Amino acid sequence: MPYFDAASAAPLHPVARQALLASLDEGWADPARLYREGRRARLLLDAAREAAAEAVGCRPDELVFTPSGTRALHDGIAGALAGRRRTGRHLVVSAVEHSAVLQSAASLEAAGGTVTEVAVDRTGRVAPGSYAAALTPGTALAALQSANHEVGTVQPVAEVAEECRAAGVPLLVDAAQSLGWGPVEGGWSLLTASAHKWGGPAGVGLLAVRKGVRFAPQGPSDERESGRAPGFPDLPGIVAAAASLRAVRAEAAAEAARLRELVERVRARVPELVPDVEVVGDPVRRLPHLVTFSCLYVDGEALLHALDRAGFSVSSGSSCTSSTLMPSHVLRAMGVLSEGNVRVSLPAGTRAADVEAFLGVLPGAVASVRERLGVPREAAAAAPSPTGSGSGAAAELVVDALGKRCPIPVIELAKVIGDVPVGGLVTVLSDDEAARLDVPAWCGMRDQEYVGERPVPGGTAYTVRRRG
Amino acid sequence: MPYFDAASAAPLHPVARQALLASLDEGWADPARLYREGRRARLLLDAAREAAAEAVGCRPDELVFTPSGTRALHDGIAGALAGRRRTGRHLVVSAVEHSAVLQSAASLEAAGGTVTEVAVDRTGRVAPGSYAAALTPGTALAALQSANHEVGTVQPVAEVAEECRAAGVPLLVDAAQSLGWGPVEGGWSLLTASAHKWGGPAGVGLLAVRKGVRFAPQGPSDERESGRAPGFPDLPGIVAAAASLRAVRAEAAAEAARLRELVERVRARVPELVPDVEVVGDPVRRLPHLVTFSCLYVDGEALLHALDRAGFSVSSGSSCTSSTLMPSHVLRAMGVLSEGNVRVSLPAGTRAADVEAFLGVLPGAVASVRERLGVPREAAAAAPSPTGSGSGAAAELVVDALGKRCPIPVIELAKVIGDVPVGGLVTVLSDDEAARLDVPAWCGMRDQEYVGERPVPGGTAYTVRRRG
Repeated sequence: MPYFDAASAAPLHPVARQALLASLDEGWADPARLYREGRRARLLLDAAREAAAEAVGCRPDELVFTPSGTRALHDGIAGALAGRRRTGRHLVVSAVEHSAVLQSAASLEAAGGTVTEVAVDRTGRVAPGSYAAALTPGTALAALQSANHEVGTVQPVAEVAEECRAAGVPLLVDAAQSLGWGPVEGGWSLLTASAHKWGGPAGVGLLAVRKGVRFAPQGPSDERESGRAPGFPDLPGIVAAAASLRAVRAEAAAEAARLRELVERVRARVPELVPDVEVVGDPVRRLPHLVTFSCLYVDGEALLHALDRAGFSVSSGSSCTSSTLMPSHVLRAMGVLSEGNVRVSLPAGTRAADVEAFLGVLPGAVASVRERLGVPREAAAAAPSPTGSGSGAAAELVVDALGKRCPIPVIELAKVIGDVPVGGLVTVLSDDEAARLDVPAWCGMRDQEYVGERPVPGGTAYTVRRRG
Repeated sequence: MPYFDAASAAPLHPVARQALLASLDEGWADPARLYREGRRARLLLDAAREAAAEAVGCRPDELVFTPSGTRALHDGIAGALAGRRRTGRHLVVSAVEHSAVLQSAASLEAAGGTVTEVAVDRTGRVAPGSYAAALTPGTALAALQSANHEVGTVQPVAEVAEECRAAGVPLLVDAAQSLGWGPVEGGWSLLTASAHKWGGPAGVGLLAVRKGVRFAPQGPSDERESGRAPGFPDLPGIVAAAASLRAVRAEAAAEAARLRELVERVRARVPELVPDVEVVGDPVRRLPHLVTFSCLYVDGEALLHALDRAGFSVSSGSSCTSSTLMPSHVLRAMGVLSEGNVRVSLPAGTRAADVEAFLGVLPGAVASVRERLGVPREAAAAAPSPTGSGSGAAAELVVDALGKRCPIPVIELAKVIGDVPVGGLVTVLSDDEAARLDVPAWCGMRDQEYVGERPVPGGTAYTVRRRG
C-alpha cells in the first residue's frame, strides 16, 4: 500500500529500527549517573551527538536533542529572542514557515513583540532582498525554512543568511524537510530539524546553536542538554535518529536523483491526465521527493478519501481537511488555488510502479468527486458555455453561496459565468474562507478577470468579469 | 549485575518492549491524518490514552502525553498558574519536591510571582496543616509529590488535597515515583508522571488535568494533545508506556510486598553492618522499593564508585555527586546527614540474593572509603578518644578545613573532639556547603551539642560543644 506522505512522517528506516532495539537494552539508564549503566548511556548519547553534529555541520557542543522538531523551533526561537532582548523584540519570518514558527511568532506578538512576515512569490519562494528589507535595528532574529513542507520549494537560505550576517541578525533555519537530503549551506546561526522526517523515530528533534550566538533558554530548565532541553532524554530514540540520519545521507544523492525523476513525472503527467489542475511550487528549486497540485471543483477531503480507498495516502492543504476550515497558510501566501489540493511526498524507496499506479487512479478519483459535487461538464471544460453569449443574457448575476463550503462557491461561479455576456459581471456571495483564495485563482486559471471583493452581511462578495 | 537505581530509571519492562516493537510498525504515522496509516495511529493513541487514564483514575480527555515527566511538571504548573492568574501568583510547594517543580517555582519568582516552600519533618514528610497554613487568598496552585524520590517517604496527599479543596486551590500531584504502584488517592486537580520510572520508555510523561480546573497552556502551542503538549507525539513510546503501566499495575501488589520485605531487610541490617550510619526517610509510610542511608566520614562519590566496582548501581544525594557541590535539597530540607549518602531503589524483579550480596559488599566498601580518607579508628568508633579527657586539654580548638570538601570537615571535627574537655568547644572553619548540614547531623548522631554557625572570612565557622 503506497504511502505518499513522507513530508508528514516517514516509516522507520531499518537502521533506525536496529539502533533503537540495540539501545533499548544499552541506553535506558540515566546518562548523568556515574555507574556503569549510566556511563554506557552517556557513551551512546555522546556518539549520537557527534554523528548528528557531523550531519548538520556543526560542533557536537553546539547541538542538543529536543523532544520534537516543534519543540526545537519553539524553544530555539524563544531562546534566541531572549538572548537578544536588549537589541529588540522584532522577529522576521517568511509567510510560509511551519506552523511551529508562526505559533512562536504569535506568542511573541502576544507578549508585546513585533513580527514581520516576508511575502513569497507564486512558487512559495522568498526573495533574499525582501528579508534584507525586513531587518531593522530592533530585529532580534530572522527565521527561514530550508525548503517548504507543503510545496517543496527550496528557499535561498545562503543568500538570506548573508543578508542577515551583514545586518548582524542571527538566522534560524528550520531544516525539517531537507536535513535528510543534505546539510544546509550558508552561514546560519541556529538550525532545527525533526528525526521522523528522515526515517528516524518520533520524539526526537535537533536544535543547533552556533557558538557565539546569544541564547537564553526560556522557562524552567535543568542541567540536561546544556540547559536547552529539559527532561530525561529519550536515548534509544536519539541513537536511532542519529544512526538513521547517517544512513539516509549515505543514500541521499542516488535516492534524490531517482525520486526527482518520479516527481518530475507527476508534475508533467497530472495536468495532462486531469483537467483544471494547477501544479504548485517551484518547478526546479525544489525538494526531490515532493509535489503538490490543486484541482478545480474538487473537495480536498473527498479526494483524499477516494485516494485512500484506492490505497494511496497523501495529504492536503485544502480548507476542508483542516480543523479551522481555512486553506493552508502556505497556499494562501502563494495565492494559488487551494481546493482539491493534494501533496504527494515520496518516502525513500518508493517504486516507480507505485507512482504509475497513482497516476492511473488519480483521474478517476478526481472525476468521481466532481461528479458527486454535480459539477456540470461545461464547468469542467475549458470554455464557458455558449448559452450566456446570447443577447438576452443578464449583464450581472449574483450567486448566493453563503453557508456553502469549498469547492461549492467556485462551482457555482463556473456554472453561471456563461450566463452573462462578455464584459458582464458575476458576484459570488460566500462566507467560506477558501473562496478568498479560490475565486481569484479560478479567474487566473480560466482567464477571467477578478474584479475584487467587498464585505456584505454574513460574508464577502467576490466579483468576476467575464472575459471570453 | 544488580541495578538498584529504579527511582532514576527502570529497565524496559518486557511488555513495554513488545508494545514498542509492535507500534514501530503500526504507529509511526501522524494520528491527525485521515488516511489509513493515520487512522491506525489514532486508534493506538486513543487506546493508550484510555489505558493510561484508567490507571491514573481520570477520564481519557483529561489526560495528555508529554515528552517527559519534567515537561509534564513544567507545562502543567505553568498552565495551572496561568489559568488562575486573576486569583494571584502564589505557588505552594513542599521543600522536597522534584527539581522540576522547584525549577518551575524559581521561574515563577523570576517572573514576579511568589512561592512558599512547606517544610518537612526529619522523615521528609509534610504536615497537612502546614499546607493549609501556607494557602492564601492569592494562592493559584499547590504542588505536592505523592512520594519522595530520594528517601521514599509517602506524602499525605489525600489530606493535603482536602485542605486545598477547602481553600479552593487546585493541587497538582507529582506521582512520578508512585504511579506504577497504584493510583493517587484523594481529590487532586492535576497529576503528572513519567513512564521510564515504571519500566516504560524514556520520552513519555503524563499530565492529567481534571475537568473544571482552570488551565491555560503557556508558550506556543499546536492542536496536538488538546493544545497542552505541542509536537508530533512519540506514539510507539506512548503505546509502550500505557501497556507497561497496565502490566506493572497487575503485578504491583505482590511485587510491592516482596520488595518491601527486601527493603525492610536493608533498613534493619545496614546499621548493624556498618558503624555510624543513619537510615533516613519514614520507616513505615514509604515506597515499597526504596531505602536511603548516609554514612559518616564517607565521600559519597567514592562510595558509589566502590559499589559500582563491586557491581552495584546506586545513586547518592551527597554534595560530591552533584555538579553544584551542594547536598541534595531533600536531605537539606530534612536536616539529615548528607555525607556518604546512598539511595537504593529496587527495580521490579530484584532477587533477594542480590540484596544479600549488596549487604555483603557494603561494609567493606564503606570501610575502604573511610580508610582511604584516613578516618582514625577513634573517629569511627562510638565514643570520643580518651586523650582529651585529661586535664591538660585545651578548652577550645579551631579546625581549619577551608578548601576541603565533604566529608573532610566532619572527619577533622571527629578527630579532635576528644582533644577538648567535656564542655569544651570545637569550631570547624569550612567553605563546603555540606558542612552546614553534616556538622549538626554529626552532633545529633554522636550526641554532641551543636552550638551554631557564624560567617568568617572565606567561609563559615561551625561550633560544637563536647558533651561526653
